[in-house]
Amino acid sequence: MSAPSLARSVKVHALDNVAIVVDAKGARARQVLADGTLLADNVPMGHKVALADIAEGAPILRYGEVIGHAARDIPKGACVTETLVRMPEAPPLASLSRVRRPIPAAPPLEGYTFEGFRNPDGSVGVRNVLAISISVQCVAGVVAHVVERVKRELLPKYPNVDDVVALDHVYGCGVAINAPDALVPIRTLRNLARNPNFGGEAMIVGLGCEKLVPEMLRSGPADASAIVRLQDESFTGFSDMVDGVIAQAVPRLERLNARRRETCPVSDLVIGVQCGGSDAFSGVTANPAVGFAADLIVRAGGAVMFSEVTEVRDAIHLLVARAADDAVAEALIREMDWYDRYLARGSADRSANTSPGNKTGGLSSIVEKALGSVIKSGSSPIVDVLSAGERIRKKGMIFAATPASDFICGTQQLASGIALQVFTTGRGTPYGLAAAPVVKVATNSALATRWHDLIDLDAGRIATGEATLEDVGWELFRLILDVASGRTQVAADRLGLHNALALFNPGPVT
Amino acid sequence: MSAPSLARSVKVHALDNVAIVVDAKGARARQVLADGTLLADNVPMGHKVALADIAEGAPILRYGEVIGHAARDIPKGACVTETLVRMPEAPPLASLSRVRRPIPAAPPLEGYTFEGFRNPDGSVGVRNVLAISISVQCVAGVVAHVVERVKRELLPKYPNVDDVVALDHVYGCGVAINAPDALVPIRTLRNLARNPNFGGEAMIVGLGCEKLVPEMLRSGPADASAIVRLQDESFTGFSDMVDGVIAQAVPRLERLNARRRETCPVSDLVIGVQCGGSDAFSGVTANPAVGFAADLIVRAGGAVMFSEVTEVRDAIHLLVARAADDAVAEALIREMDWYDRYLARGSADRSANTSPGNKTGGLSSIVEKALGSVIKSGSSPIVDVLSAGERIRKKGMIFAATPASDFICGTQQLASGIALQVFTTGRGTPYGLAAAPVVKVATNSALATRWHDLIDLDAGRIATGEATLEDVGWELFRLILDVASGRTQVAADRLGLHNALALFNPGPVT
Repeated sequence: MSAPSLARSVKVHALDNVAIVVDAKGARARQVLADGTLLADNVPMGHKVALADIAEGAPILRYGEVIGHAARDIPKGACVTETLVRMPEAPPLASLSRVRRPIPAAPPLEGYTFEGFRNPDGSVGVRNVLAISISVQCVAGVVAHVVERVKRELLPKYPNVDDVVALDHVYGCGVAINAPDALVPIRTLRNLARNPNFGGEAMIVGLGCEKLVPEMLRSGPADASAIVRLQDESFTGFSDMVDGVIAQAVPRLERLNARRRETCPVSDLVIGVQCGGSDAFSGVTANPAVGFAADLIVRAGGAVMFSEVTEVRDAIHLLVARAADDAVAEALIREMDWYDRYLARGSADRSANTSPGNKTGGLSSIVEKALGSVIKSGSSPIVDVLSAGERIRKKGMIFAATPASDFICGTQQLASGIALQVFTTGRGTPYGLAAAPVVKVATNSALATRWHDLIDLDAGRIATGEATLEDVGWELFRLILDVASGRTQVAADRLGLHNALALFNPGPVT
Repeated sequence: MSAPSLARSVKVHALDNVAIVVDAKGARARQVLADGTLLADNVPMGHKVALADIAEGAPILRYGEVIGHAARDIPKGACVTETLVRMPEAPPLASLSRVRRPIPAAPPLEGYTFEGFRNPDGSVGVRNVLAISISVQCVAGVVAHVVERVKRELLPKYPNVDDVVALDHVYGCGVAINAPDALVPIRTLRNLARNPNFGGEAMIVGLGCEKLVPEMLRSGPADASAIVRLQDESFTGFSDMVDGVIAQAVPRLERLNARRRETCPVSDLVIGVQCGGSDAFSGVTANPAVGFAADLIVRAGGAVMFSEVTEVRDAIHLLVARAADDAVAEALIREMDWYDRYLARGSADRSANTSPGNKTGGLSSIVEKALGSVIKSGSSPIVDVLSAGERIRKKGMIFAATPASDFICGTQQLASGIALQVFTTGRGTPYGLAAAPVVKVATNSALATRWHDLIDLDAGRIATGEATLEDVGWELFRLILDVASGRTQVAADRLGLHNALALFNPGPVT
């Protein structure tokens, strides 16, 4: 009988009693891992193997943290399937330790720049886009015609304008506009129009009888954004409306067209990070590489937002420990508590995240997913917490509280002021945003190979040993600067793949 | 001094102590109404005039019903502004009378037909559309490319296929998929794909890791709708995915193309009625005309759905009295109660409906709006009540419980099985649906004139005396049959004006 063949695996932390299988085809029973563990079962890619006997009730450790307890005795070498893991409760917020762990100051990173569009309000965009904000879905059909005509007839005359984008949504009327939670979608829409990629030139199209009166979308008394109302009595029919909106668009296109990219320090850059369609590699390859790049941006003085309340909830103790001050620690807990109550009101089921695809990808529970998710935020101190749709106030690592839904998170981060988003995926999603470039990072090389034209960076090379986490982290940092400078186009923009905006509306519709 | 000039006004019911002013320019103080009332104030179009002295606390009557109580003494001839009307509470459900008022059977209406597309399941469509259902927003960008390619390359080869439509939505993942309220959006999506205008040929595009697994969108074990998953390992990148979806579309386009319109009795027709951007004329002109036409369709054996829970809530006593049996009466109350609790959970404010535009248009409160709204449902007995997204089960007048938001109501009625929608508007909205023709009826001639290319029928002629309610009702009935037969194109389709679908998701996002 020949010697058993070696199966590649990754163990993340010295304390861990499980490792995950790396090979795209999985590992077979009777193969051995590098530490000598003999596999008792076939184990699919991304799934866990017990590195020691784990007694019923004993903790299962990954990332050096408890991801669950053994539902029954698990022998060394067994595949640790979902049914073998008893999910722990989320850390209770009331009794959560507020002790912060001092983070040694990282040395500043100097000498890196990008070519951006500097805005009147001091923010810097990475694209030069005319945005048309709408106060209510009623006008979306007319605005779609406007967008088409601007693309066809006007953009060719304004070569420095990258695009025209309608900020489409289904809010604005038929909603409980004075309910307490209406604050969130209204603030989101208001700040969305102020995204740095719109150059301070967003215009507003309203109907005239909607509950969300267009003036509510202005940022303050000094904001004189043009408002066109389709019910305005001067409009005699459809063509006249389209012409009326375009008349307001032309001077904006002219001003946007006169802008040029200029060299900006990385401290002017604001990015968001997100994951979607995660697998067991997310927390081992792509997310740590994103965390590494995020730390570089923070060291260079820039800002990075991470989000997805339900996917960090189970790792809240790790985030509170990283809070820059007591106010940030309390704000983190406040946001978790708000969301706990929001979910309880709707009788949401804790077990429904992870998704079926997460489970197929080897993630047993939201705890394991959360631990892999927060790694995207690197190791910098958390300096601020934004409630959903609030606009950025500080540089550094920021928690922007949003739902984990990819489109809602994307929309809310755009409102909070990101100019670019980094998105990691293991199962694969053709996600894109019209308002900002999305750099898509694959967690495994199988996906990066198969989706050759949809993925911007393959972090799977970390698992196969072809590259180190630091290599991929630096590569991503440089790619972010290239994309921010307009030198490199991301896959989603090259293909014209853009998803819908999706506001977070925690309030009722009427 | 010359004799005071006459101002045109409408009093709806003999008991009413207010009338509304008809003239587009409003009426001026010192003008008189036909009954001799001398105006004390300038009164804008659609606003109310007191026809008698109304003492503080006394009821203000319109449609023969109490729309509020006088906030202070209102002299005869005064403009009854919103601040003069104290809004009554909604009828309490627990103590509501269950007494039904017997409705004399209307004579059957025979001899009317339309040219429709008969489907394998017995339903009849008025358009012949390829629908692409999606299980999650993630795939929407790819499906948008499919739709564009089908329109450009394939539809010219299949001249009997009217259109290809993506059933776009932001549900499917990042949602509490097992929460009790998830039933509503899932049922809605499932039934949306079964809309009669899709010929039983809707296909499903999924991602592969979403919470809403595509099989949940099938109608039952016998439903073998094609499912394409973009994460399928056979797809190598974007173009391959687009080709894969199109390969599934082609046989469907061939089968749809082989269909022909055939003569169908009106009993095969299912329509929905809705109003949006209402004014004080809605309840006097367009809505009663729609109610008249709805009664004609019911008399011919067809089905009519009316909806908008929050806009009928204050007239629930009138609907319960029209219930065909006790079960329908209880179902009406159950739906109102469900929505009362849903709104209370979100601390919704009763006063936020009416919208600012409704108020400008003369509607003082939701009570007045509701009374004007339910008139769309005519006078036939209510034979069934559908919860949000449930599919039609009976012919006749049906209450389909949906929010009042135009887009959500439209989407939910499509799921419930309407082939065509009638939409009345007073303030004006350029509303349209890609999946079904929308016949837009103006409540006043000023709007119909100004929006000459956006409005399909002017019911304002009822207020000016140019046509009777019966004239316009018959005209609308015939227009509905012409549109259903493909002989007349509605304004929204002629201009290509289509709004987004918007699912009702009462549950939380995660």
